[in-house]
Amino acid sequence: MAAMTTDTTGAAARDDASRPGGPADSPFVRACRRQPVPHTPVWFMRQAGRSLPEYREIRANVAMLESCRRPDLVTEITLQPVRRHKVDAAILFSDIVVPVAAAGVDLDIVPGTGPVVAEPVRTAADVQRIRPIGRDDVPYVDEAVRMLVKELGDTPLIGFAGAPFTLASYLVEGGPSRNHVKTKALMYGDPELWHALAGRLAEVTLAFLRVQIAAGVSAVQLFDSWAGALSEADYRRFVLPHSTTVLSGLADAGIPRIHFGVGTAELLGAMGEAGADVVGVDWRTPLDVATRRIGPDKAVQGNLDPCLLFAPWPVIEAEVRRILDEGRAAPGHVFNLGHGVLPETDPEVLTRVVALVHELSARPAEGA
Amino acid sequence: MAAMTTDTTGAAARDDASRPGGPADSPFVRACRRQPVPHTPVWFMRQAGRSLPEYREIRANVAMLESCRRPDLVTEITLQPVRRHKVDAAILFSDIVVPVAAAGVDLDIVPGTGPVVAEPVRTAADVQRIRPIGRDDVPYVDEAVRMLVKELGDTPLIGFAGAPFTLASYLVEGGPSRNHVKTKALMYGDPELWHALAGRLAEVTLAFLRVQIAAGVSAVQLFDSWAGALSEADYRRFVLPHSTTVLSGLADAGIPRIHFGVGTAELLGAMGEAGADVVGVDWRTPLDVATRRIGPDKAVQGNLDPCLLFAPWPVIEAEVRRILDEGRAAPGHVFNLGHGVLPETDPEVLTRVVALVHELSARPAEGA
Repeated sequence: MAAMTTDTTGAAARDDASRPGGPADSPFVRACRRQPVPHTPVWFMRQAGRSLPEYREIRANVAMLESCRRPDLVTEITLQPVRRHKVDAAILFSDIVVPVAAAGVDLDIVPGTGPVVAEPVRTAADVQRIRPIGRDDVPYVDEAVRMLVKELGDTPLIGFAGAPFTLASYLVEGGPSRNHVKTKALMYGDPELWHALAGRLAEVTLAFLRVQIAAGVSAVQLFDSWAGALSEADYRRFVLPHSTTVLSGLADAGIPRIHFGVGTAELLGAMGEAGADVVGVDWRTPLDVATRRIGPDKAVQGNLDPCLLFAPWPVIEAEVRRILDEGRAAPGHVFNLGHGVLPETDPEVLTRVVALVHELSARPAEGA
Repeated sequence: MAAMTTDTTGAAARDDASRPGGPADSPFVRACRRQPVPHTPVWFMRQAGRSLPEYREIRANVAMLESCRRPDLVTEITLQPVRRHKVDAAILFSDIVVPVAAAGVDLDIVPGTGPVVAEPVRTAADVQRIRPIGRDDVPYVDEAVRMLVKELGDTPLIGFAGAPFTLASYLVEGGPSRNHVKTKALMYGDPELWHALAGRLAEVTLAFLRVQIAAGVSAVQLFDSWAGALSEADYRRFVLPHSTTVLSGLADAGIPRIHFGVGTAELLGAMGEAGADVVGVDWRTPLDVATRRIGPDKAVQGNLDPCLLFAPWPVIEAEVRRILDEGRAAPGHVFNLGHGVLPETDPEVLTRVVALVHELSARPAEGA
């Protein structure tokens, strides 16, 4: 697999990945493609992170943004949950503001707060200062993905990016926000500036994911974590065109595209229309209901409430069974949480959930 | 109306209120009852509070809990938005933790944080310490409501209480929470203790609202602000029975009962089943869609996004028109925001919205 390290298109990596049993033929990728699988694949949003003691150890004296920019750390942190939990996919350890920082926005990730932007975006000039990015702006991501693809072997790696609305919210609010009031005020008050900002962020995101695809990721997930703050009408008018730029813009890569947000009961259909192969669903909407809203041509991902991991095991087991049952209504199901792993989660519970999903969903090797 | 001040059942107040043109015949109460109205009534959640300079002035040196316990302040703060905006209803100024504090729970409302509970509820003994309450535990509420009913004349006063789930979340988490993880862990891990806690809180809430009803409120609203954190299955199992204790327990009072939560797209039908006459809807679900989920025998309340109030006036106007149009699909519509007024809202915009709702919805006096 040494050839992959000098490949700049990802084609060689993909050719190799698609061999029988390779990452492109893995249960995870097959489920995303709505193909038969030997078992329901499972991974966890935020599986690489604060719930793991080995993560907290490695991050002890390293700031968040620095850890996202060191290929050795990104690789190690991304691999930790794969080793520990035997999940069916790795997801690149990063932060949604990494490409924005690479595009020239002055920001930091403050422990206990989240991303803090030095000068929130207010004007067209502010938008202009967000530069286009390419491989050379995020060489550490390119390097980390290439190292990971080698290390992971047959386990697929999911590329990671934040979607334009969620990124824009951080940039306009200046940090995390409960109500996104400045962001919405900008949308409603200056739609032209809003679309310029979201359009610019879509280009940055598209470029960020293209770097990951060229380096060999087997799928991508676009996180629009806060899209659920919007009505469907506002989502369709202000957000969908830009998420479509990203997701439909990656159609030629030929790898599954997952689109996820929280509190998106009313948005599931629209989010699928952005060009997703898989729509992530939070715990509020049962997967069979979600499938009716999303339509029969997309797989679903989800949707155990992260808070359920603090319940006694028999309660967790019953919920996992329910979700697997409801997921059978979908043409493809990737088991996951309905939102990210909470920091105080017991990692041993996550490991047990992986084993349980595999055990309960094991099928004859029809897809081999 | 002097007789009302010594009435302990609310019967005299109600008899007087139901005279033609009295509060029980007001557009607000009529809309709640799905009766014809001369115009769509409008009020705003959190209309009495931080968006008003006259409120900030009166609260300058008074702590939140103290302000809820002084009948003169409660009366003045409750009246402020009625005077200023000409809304169709007043809502009793209070805080959802007021009855819980009256029941013996040691807590404070910390500026910038919210309610903070000294010893979070963990055990059956903690639940036992939450005492039943009656009129003598909240005399200031009784007094304030009686003063308000006199001052308000034909404008109806809405009674105010937090619902068992939202109250329980504060008590279990010890304060405001993003994920309600301890609350859910208690639900799943010790359902018996959960039901004991929620049942006790339902009794406290019921008693708190009965005091307000006896003193003459024309309607009540039960705020389950955080219920949207739950799936419908969990809501039905862990919350609905207790909200039903409150709302169905007030059926004999013969006044409209409004039930509201945020992010409740999947819960609207269930929330109506708790015994509500009116279901509050946040901005994520259009009112015509909400009506299909709630059913034809309940009115709806909502649902302008509070962030929209920061938009240019033509945008607000278009949204108000849309909501009035969608609200025509419901058998009764009370115009409101989809969540509380944000502190930084320009109060003049609220005043304009009231006038616009009245103007756009004016109908011949068919309901006179």
